[in-house]
Amino acid sequence: MTVADVSRLDAADPLAGLRQQFLLPEGKIYLDGNSLGALSKPVQVRLENVVRQEWGRDLISSWNSNDWINLPVTVGEKIAVLLGAAAGQVISCDTVSVNLFKLMVTALELQPGRRIILTQEDNFPTDIYMAQAVSGLLGEQRCSVRSVPAEDIVDAMDTEVALLLLTQVNFRDGRLHDIEAVTRMAHAKGILVLWDLAHSAGVIPLELDRWQVDMAVGCGYKFLNGGPGAPGFLYLAERHQNQVGQPLSGWLGHAEPFAFEPGYRPARGVGRYLGGTPGILGMSALDAALDVFAGLDMCEVRQKSSAMTALFIDGVLGSPIADDCRVLTPLAATERGSQVSLAHPQAYGVAQALIETGVVVDFRAPDIVRFGFSPLYNSYRDVADALQHLLRILAEREYLQPRFAIRAKVT
Amino acid sequence: MTVADVSRLDAADPLAGLRQQFLLPEGKIYLDGNSLGALSKPVQVRLENVVRQEWGRDLISSWNSNDWINLPVTVGEKIAVLLGAAAGQVISCDTVSVNLFKLMVTALELQPGRRIILTQEDNFPTDIYMAQAVSGLLGEQRCSVRSVPAEDIVDAMDTEVALLLLTQVNFRDGRLHDIEAVTRMAHAKGILVLWDLAHSAGVIPLELDRWQVDMAVGCGYKFLNGGPGAPGFLYLAERHQNQVGQPLSGWLGHAEPFAFEPGYRPARGVGRYLGGTPGILGMSALDAALDVFAGLDMCEVRQKSSAMTALFIDGVLGSPIADDCRVLTPLAATERGSQVSLAHPQAYGVAQALIETGVVVDFRAPDIVRFGFSPLYNSYRDVADALQHLLRILAEREYLQPRFAIRAKVT
Repeated sequence: MTVADVSRLDAADPLAGLRQQFLLPEGKIYLDGNSLGALSKPVQVRLENVVRQEWGRDLISSWNSNDWINLPVTVGEKIAVLLGAAAGQVISCDTVSVNLFKLMVTALELQPGRRIILTQEDNFPTDIYMAQAVSGLLGEQRCSVRSVPAEDIVDAMDTEVALLLLTQVNFRDGRLHDIEAVTRMAHAKGILVLWDLAHSAGVIPLELDRWQVDMAVGCGYKFLNGGPGAPGFLYLAERHQNQVGQPLSGWLGHAEPFAFEPGYRPARGVGRYLGGTPGILGMSALDAALDVFAGLDMCEVRQKSSAMTALFIDGVLGSPIADDCRVLTPLAATERGSQVSLAHPQAYGVAQALIETGVVVDFRAPDIVRFGFSPLYNSYRDVADALQHLLRILAEREYLQPRFAIRAKVT
Repeated sequence: MTVADVSRLDAADPLAGLRQQFLLPEGKIYLDGNSLGALSKPVQVRLENVVRQEWGRDLISSWNSNDWINLPVTVGEKIAVLLGAAAGQVISCDTVSVNLFKLMVTALELQPGRRIILTQEDNFPTDIYMAQAVSGLLGEQRCSVRSVPAEDIVDAMDTEVALLLLTQVNFRDGRLHDIEAVTRMAHAKGILVLWDLAHSAGVIPLELDRWQVDMAVGCGYKFLNGGPGAPGFLYLAERHQNQVGQPLSGWLGHAEPFAFEPGYRPARGVGRYLGGTPGILGMSALDAALDVFAGLDMCEVRQKSSAMTALFIDGVLGSPIADDCRVLTPLAATERGSQVSLAHPQAYGVAQALIETGVVVDFRAPDIVRFGFSPLYNSYRDVADALQHLLRILAEREYLQPRFAIRAKVT
């Protein structure tokens, strides 16, 4: 593909104008939006206002006058649009880990007589750890974790399984589950599903309601661009609401928090999944970040994402220089998320050399370099340039430089 | 007390200079720092930098280069200084509610054979709700909540009690528990103590290590001035660390989070109480807010707090105009926190009339007006002026204006 070809792709990109809404660092190609999304101008403006005006000037009154108290719902409903969820089912709060805990316990209570949480052995660790936490707390008689390879999930769906806990896009290799098909199989066995959408929300069209998904969680700081450690979110289908409590029943999930009653009475609906006081700085940033998605056609976002990952994969596979790279990500665009993972024997050095040259990627032990493509602010030019830098680093074996030797702490 | 007397108090106040570090709204007397602390200049500067530089420019690398990954510990150690806690025992994370949950479960695991969480029936609701949550999740055989009036706490300490859960300063009336004495009594019965320091940290000298406190939680958004919904913190005495796990075992509490292992192995020390990814905007604000406390003598802070509440109480008690006000807060300075609570039959109207006149206070149902005094940015002049406004509102019965009629939603 020539420079002119790439320019034509960018010129024809219906999303190209969105890049102007982001404050990207000069001289860098940022391909780590799957780990931390970039800062957008609406977020910067909003945060200045929240700090100077809402907190600094209006102070406590902002809980009402600036509607802080409803931010978890306001943000939740904006995310719901991206999830294909009707109103009243999504709320933003806490972290992915804490939200997983709340929903897993809910699922077990909704499924008396079943005690297994089934998950994938290479699921993101916190998903597995939190399942282990639930089991540890409730005891093996009430909850046990069954962790199997991806190819064994279907066979492992038996009548003991209460909940199937999966992440749609695998964080290591970018492989995509077919939510609709897997959910249908689970339901046929009486199993509820809890999907982790950490690497999906904001980059893959989702139809949680239509696919009859039971529960989902996700994070605000990856493709939603909500800022470092942005609040998470959770989805609970309306048909499952109001049947059981939630295990972290803090005061803001009470039916009337400001009555300060001595006994807990859960709010109706998904609002009971709130607990403590939400972090308004982080939640305001996420709220503003979601405004960039207003009116976007998520199928266009997906189309661009697929075209970018294809352009990159084709470039790697088509170059003899990249012979020592193995493409871990599925070659079929419908089977992958918005990242490309390459395995390389010197992956840490490759990642560091890329970063030094201005291509921001990340490394995942033991041998993976991840390239995340964000259709809202990455261009095809970014993809082509990153590819050229990669091929140069591989050709010149820059990754062998002593300064790229692995260190103890890497994120 | 004359205007000149008040001016002399301010002129002699060793903390008076701190007010310049805060960005207070003009024309207002802010007496709600016990609910939301004011914005300080270091916080404003820090947040601008975190947004524009650390997130906007440095992006993912900030987890290492700007030490985001260690913020929970960095912030925790700054708070530890205010708690009288040696290093390695305090971490900032999650909300007060979630931290209560983690520590209550820890306490039960440390106390096999005991199953009662003893608390005060007018404790802050989230404390009680979360205790009820633990009981609901583990079952009455493993955990039951015993909630008694303050005067019955000592009698209720029997050999079934695993944990005594109390808030040092009552949110309604401002009454203070003697942590040292109550902890000693609990320990004599083999009971662990968990203190909620939401209304204490940053305004009352604390000596958690010396008092042999076992556990504590607190919030960052009241007297610590960390911003709306700032992260909470928790303290776990070193002698109790590494003996049991924690029930919300998310990935950042793992011994090696970036090894992405399939099984959870808790980090050593208080770090295992981390779970999900921390909110960096909120935690950076709290980190900067704590710098205002650097080098402060907390006994001076307490002395000023006591003098301010005394000035206000004396003014109310000394005026026949305030005859229909009842001072709920203890009259002995050593028995109260940094707030004064007045009961009045038209408390909502009184609070609204004060707010309209620029004195920011809050209302707590059914009949309480709370005046919070923050020694870092409130002056004696603030106290005297607020008192004059109150007396005028009472004398002229302004609280009866229809516009101050109670509405449904009040924070």
